[in-house]
Amino acid sequence: MLMQTHESRLAALREQLKKQGLDGFVVPISDEHMSEYIGAYAQRLAWLTGFGGSAGSAIVLLDRAAIFVDGRYTIQVRDQVDERLFSYQNVPATSHAKWLADNAPEGARIGYDAWLHSRGWVDGVGQALAQKGAELVAVAANPIDAVWADRPAASGAPAVIHADDHAGRSSADKRAELADWLRRERLDTAVISALDSVAWLLNIRGADVERTPVALSYVLAHADGTAELFIAPEKVTPELVQHLGNAVTVRPRDGFEAALAGLSGRRVAVDPDYGVAAISAALEAGGAKVVVTRDPTIVPRAIKNPVEQAGHRAAQARDGAAIAKFLHWLSVEAPRGGETELSAVAALRAFREETGVLKDQSFDTISAAGPHAAIPHYRVDEESNLPIRPGSVFLCDSGAQYLDGTTDITRTVWIGPGEPTAEHKDRFTRVLKGHIAIVRAVFPQGTNGSQLDAFARQYLWQAGLDYAHGTGHGVGSYLSVHEGPQRIAKATGGQAGTLQELFAGMILSNEPGYYKAGDYGIRIENLVLVEPREIAGADGDYLGFENLTWAPIDATLVECSLLTPDEIAWWNDYHARTRELLAPQLEGEALAWLERACAPL
Amino acid sequence: MLMQTHESRLAALREQLKKQGLDGFVVPISDEHMSEYIGAYAQRLAWLTGFGGSAGSAIVLLDRAAIFVDGRYTIQVRDQVDERLFSYQNVPATSHAKWLADNAPEGARIGYDAWLHSRGWVDGVGQALAQKGAELVAVAANPIDAVWADRPAASGAPAVIHADDHAGRSSADKRAELADWLRRERLDTAVISALDSVAWLLNIRGADVERTPVALSYVLAHADGTAELFIAPEKVTPELVQHLGNAVTVRPRDGFEAALAGLSGRRVAVDPDYGVAAISAALEAGGAKVVVTRDPTIVPRAIKNPVEQAGHRAAQARDGAAIAKFLHWLSVEAPRGGETELSAVAALRAFREETGVLKDQSFDTISAAGPHAAIPHYRVDEESNLPIRPGSVFLCDSGAQYLDGTTDITRTVWIGPGEPTAEHKDRFTRVLKGHIAIVRAVFPQGTNGSQLDAFARQYLWQAGLDYAHGTGHGVGSYLSVHEGPQRIAKATGGQAGTLQELFAGMILSNEPGYYKAGDYGIRIENLVLVEPREIAGADGDYLGFENLTWAPIDATLVECSLLTPDEIAWWNDYHARTRELLAPQLEGEALAWLERACAPL
Repeated sequence: MLMQTHESRLAALREQLKKQGLDGFVVPISDEHMSEYIGAYAQRLAWLTGFGGSAGSAIVLLDRAAIFVDGRYTIQVRDQVDERLFSYQNVPATSHAKWLADNAPEGARIGYDAWLHSRGWVDGVGQALAQKGAELVAVAANPIDAVWADRPAASGAPAVIHADDHAGRSSADKRAELADWLRRERLDTAVISALDSVAWLLNIRGADVERTPVALSYVLAHADGTAELFIAPEKVTPELVQHLGNAVTVRPRDGFEAALAGLSGRRVAVDPDYGVAAISAALEAGGAKVVVTRDPTIVPRAIKNPVEQAGHRAAQARDGAAIAKFLHWLSVEAPRGGETELSAVAALRAFREETGVLKDQSFDTISAAGPHAAIPHYRVDEESNLPIRPGSVFLCDSGAQYLDGTTDITRTVWIGPGEPTAEHKDRFTRVLKGHIAIVRAVFPQGTNGSQLDAFARQYLWQAGLDYAHGTGHGVGSYLSVHEGPQRIAKATGGQAGTLQELFAGMILSNEPGYYKAGDYGIRIENLVLVEPREIAGADGDYLGFENLTWAPIDATLVECSLLTPDEIAWWNDYHARTRELLAPQLEGEALAWLERACAPL
Repeated sequence: MLMQTHESRLAALREQLKKQGLDGFVVPISDEHMSEYIGAYAQRLAWLTGFGGSAGSAIVLLDRAAIFVDGRYTIQVRDQVDERLFSYQNVPATSHAKWLADNAPEGARIGYDAWLHSRGWVDGVGQALAQKGAELVAVAANPIDAVWADRPAASGAPAVIHADDHAGRSSADKRAELADWLRRERLDTAVISALDSVAWLLNIRGADVERTPVALSYVLAHADGTAELFIAPEKVTPELVQHLGNAVTVRPRDGFEAALAGLSGRRVAVDPDYGVAAISAALEAGGAKVVVTRDPTIVPRAIKNPVEQAGHRAAQARDGAAIAKFLHWLSVEAPRGGETELSAVAALRAFREETGVLKDQSFDTISAAGPHAAIPHYRVDEESNLPIRPGSVFLCDSGAQYLDGTTDITRTVWIGPGEPTAEHKDRFTRVLKGHIAIVRAVFPQGTNGSQLDAFARQYLWQAGLDYAHGTGHGVGSYLSVHEGPQRIAKATGGQAGTLQELFAGMILSNEPGYYKAGDYGIRIENLVLVEPREIAGADGDYLGFENLTWAPIDATLVECSLLTPDEIAWWNDYHARTRELLAPQLEGEALAWLERACAPL
C-alpha cells in the first residue's frame, strides 16, 4: 500500500516533468532558508519517497531515480524507501554531480528549485552536467508542488518576542555589532536568511518549523544599523512591531525577492551555505555586487553570553529532573514488559510537561529498543514501534525547548531483569571512557573540535571499533539543537568536523556511541560549555569544558575494572552533583531511585 | 664584524638590484628542486643574512628588508640576524604577499628567481602585487650570485647505484607502476623534480646536498615506461649507465629546460610543491599542457616495502648501540665538567663511525645544553658552543644515514651530579606520557596524523603547556630524514599537519617535547612504523605502530607517580627489548651501563 502510493507519486512527478520540459529534477530536504529542520509544507522528499530521516535528497530522471543518504541513514533508507523506485546512493562516496554525470542522458535538462539549493551546489552540479552537454535549469515553479494534492500550507503562527532577560543582549546591540562589521568589511548590506540567525539577531522566535522555535522570515541588515524584516503580515502583532522598534522596517515576505533586486550598486554579503541560489541570482539581476562571506551572526550566536549560559544551566537542571523521573519510571515499568518505544516517548514527554514550562521537544525523541538503537538517528512511528523487551539494552536520545535553553541528552540503560552481557558492559564502558575523556579535556586557545575527536574514540579503537557519526555538535539557546559552526568530529569524511576554533561560551554535545547492527546500540550524551581554564604556570590561554547536563548514567552497564581511578572519581563527582541538583525536584520512589542511581561506584 | 659583513652584502645586493632595474628581490632557502636541505652553492639566505635555520626567507627592498621565519626559529633569528638590517616577520602570521602589499612602493618591480619558487607562490604574490600596481618579475640571472664573490661551486660528486637488496624493488618495476598511473590519468609525461623522488625512482643516490644522499638531477618519466635523466655528465659512471638500462636515457642537466620546451602538445604532470615555476613556464612556452598533480612517487615512496622495513630495523638496532655508547660516555664524562656541545657532537659521530657503515649524519646534530635546548632546531657552532654543565638537562637530537636506513632519535638526559628538579621531572614525564600515547595508539584505516596529534599533547595541555612544532614527520630509506606526505601535527597553524591517510609501511617520528625559553628543553623521539593491527572482533581494518628506535630513555627524569600501570609496563617492555637488541653490540662498562639503564622502573 505504502509503496504503491510512492510509486504513483513518482509517476505523477515524471508526468509533470515532461509538461515542464524537464528530463529530471533534484529533490533536497530543504526550504527557502537552507534549514536543517523544515516545515511540513516543505517535506517534499518524505512525500515523494517515504524517507523519514533529516538529511538526504533524491534525483528523479524519467527512467530512473536515486536517493542519497549518508552513513547515519544507510539502514533506515532500506526500511523506508522502495529500492525498485529509488536506488540507494551513499554520500559522500557518490555526489549529485557524479551520479548525474553517470546517469543523465546527453543534452538532458535537469530541473532544480533555486530557492532550495545553495549557489555552490548549483555551480558544482551545473559544471558536471555541462561536461556531458546537459543543463541544470532553475524552474519557475516546483513540479512537486504541482502534483502534491494535499500539501500542507505554510505555518501561520505568530512571531513572538524573545525577551532580553533570556536573550541576554538587546537586538539593537547585536545589530550595532553587525553594522560595525559591515562597515569594517566595506559592505552595505548583509542578507540574513538562516531562520535561527534572524531569530537571534532580532530577539524573536516563532513556530513555523518543526522542533525549532523560529519564524519564516528574512532580514536585510544595513551598515547604518537599520534592518528590514520580511515576514508574512499575519504573523506580525503590534507588540512585535513595538519590540522591533523604529530601526527595523517590517515588510511582507513575498516582497523579499523584489527588495533584493532593488539593491543595485550595493555590496551585499551572502552566506554560501545559508543563502539559496535564488538570492544571489536576484541580487545580481538587480545590479548588486554579491560578496560571499560567512553569515556574520554565526560566531556571535555560538558564543553564549552570561545570561544565556545561566539559562542553559537552569534548563538543564530542570530537564535532568524530568529525565530522572523518566528513568525511574522505565526502571519500574519496562522490566514488567508491555512498554514500547512509543509509550516511552509519551512518558518522557509527560515528565517534561510536568515542568510547566516546556515549549516543545528540540527534536523527535529517538526511543530505540534493541536493534533499533543501532540506527543512530532512528525515529519511531506506529509502524516501526517495538516493545521494550525485559533483559535488553534501551537507548533514548531526546531534548527539550525551554525559553531559557535547549537541551539534548542520551541515556542508554539496561532493562532488567537479568544482567547485561560482558560485551554490553565492555562496549558501554569504552563509550563512557571516551565521554569522560572529552569532558575532562584541557586544550589551548586555538584548538578546534577535530583535534579533540580522537579522545572520544580511542578506547573503542583499541578494540577495533568506532562509530560513524560526529562526537559533538553546537546547540542553540532556545533555538536549533544543531547549531554551527563548532563541531567535534573527524577531520574528513561524511560527518566531518570544521576548523572552527573553540571559544569560551560555545556549547557542544559530547556523544560518543557504539552500534552493533541488528543487535543493540549505545550512546552517552551530555552537553558541555567551553570555559576558560585557569592553570597555575600556564603558558598562554587554556580552555576546558563545564558539564551542563545532569542525569544518572546506568551503572549496571559499567565494567568497573576498565575504569581508571581518575575516571571513577569523575563518575562519583558527576553523580554527587547530579543528586545535589535533582534531589530537590524529586520525591518518594523517584527520589529513592535517584539516591540509589547516584551512589558512588 | 659579522654584522658589518652582512651589512655590506645587503648593500651590494641593493646596488645589483638597481643595475637589473629591480626595486626588490625575494630570497628563499631553496634550490632548483625545492629541496628542504640544499647544497652550499644555493645557501643564499645564509650568505645574505647570517640565518642558519633550515626554513626561512627574506625580501630585500631598496630601503628596507625583512626576514620571515616560523615559530621554530623565533629565538634563533634574533641571535643570528641583525634587526637593523632585517625586520623579523613571523609566518604564517605575515606572508610574503601581505608584507609586500604593505611595504613595496606602488609600481615596484620585485624580482624573483623562477628556479627557486613554486608556481603557487608566484601566482599568490603576483596577484597581491598587482593589486598595488606593482609587478613580480622573473630574473634572467639571480642578483645574489652576481655579488656573491666566493660562492661555492655545485657539487661534482658521482651518482651511485642504490642496490635492489636495499631498495627492495627494481627501478624498472617502479617506472612501470608510474607509467600505469600516467596512462590511467591520460598523461604523457611526469616531471620528477624532487631530488629524493628521482633517487627513489631510479634507485640511485648521490652526495650533492647536505645530509641527504641525492644527486642533482631531473627525470622526465613517460607513459611508455621510458625515462630521461638530466644530470651533469661528470657525475655519470659506466656502472650507472648500465644500472639505468636501455629504457633510461642520460642527458646533460643543462639540457633540461630545452627538453621541457620540446614537449609540445604533451599532457605533462607537474607537482605544485616540488616543480619550480620555471618548469611550468618552460613547458607552457613550448606548447605542452601542464597538469598540476602530486608527484606520483610520493605515496609509493612513503610506504616502505618489506626489504626497506627490514633495513630500517637493522639500521635502528645498529644506531641504537652507537647511541647507547654515547649516552654511557656522556654519563661518565659530562658530570666531571669540561665537555661541550661540540665535544658531544664529535663523540657521537665517532661512536656512529665505529659501526663501519656510517655514510653520513642524516642532519646536523642538535647538541643542546641548558637554554639552547629550548630552541627546538638549535645548531651548534664554534661561536654558540656551550659547556655541558654538571647538574643540568642536556638534549641531543641526531640521526644517521646508513645504506639500509635513515635514523632520527632524540634523547634528553640529566647530567649529574645532583638531581633534576620536580619541575624537570614533571615536564619530562608529561612528554614521555605523550610519546607513549602515540606509540600505543590504535586507529582505523582512514585516519590521518592530525587526528592523533592531541594524544601526544594531552598531558602537557593539562598543565597549561604545549610545544610549537609537529609531533611527527615521515622519514626516508637512505634518503631525506624529513619525507612527506604523512605527518602527525595540529590541523592548522605554522607547522600544520596534512590530511594524508596513514598506510601500513609508512614511517613517522614520534617526538613530543617541552621548551622553557632561556632555561631548558625536553624532547623524546623514536621512529615508528605503521603496521596492520589484528584485533579479534574488529569492525574493519585497524592500524598501530611498531616501534623502530631502541635506546635507553633517562629514568632519572621520570616522575613515576605520574605514570599509569600501562605506561610503566610499556617502559619496562621497551627497555627489555632495548637491552636484548643492544647488549650483544656492547661490552665492558658500556654494557654494564646499558644493563642499569634498562632496569625496570
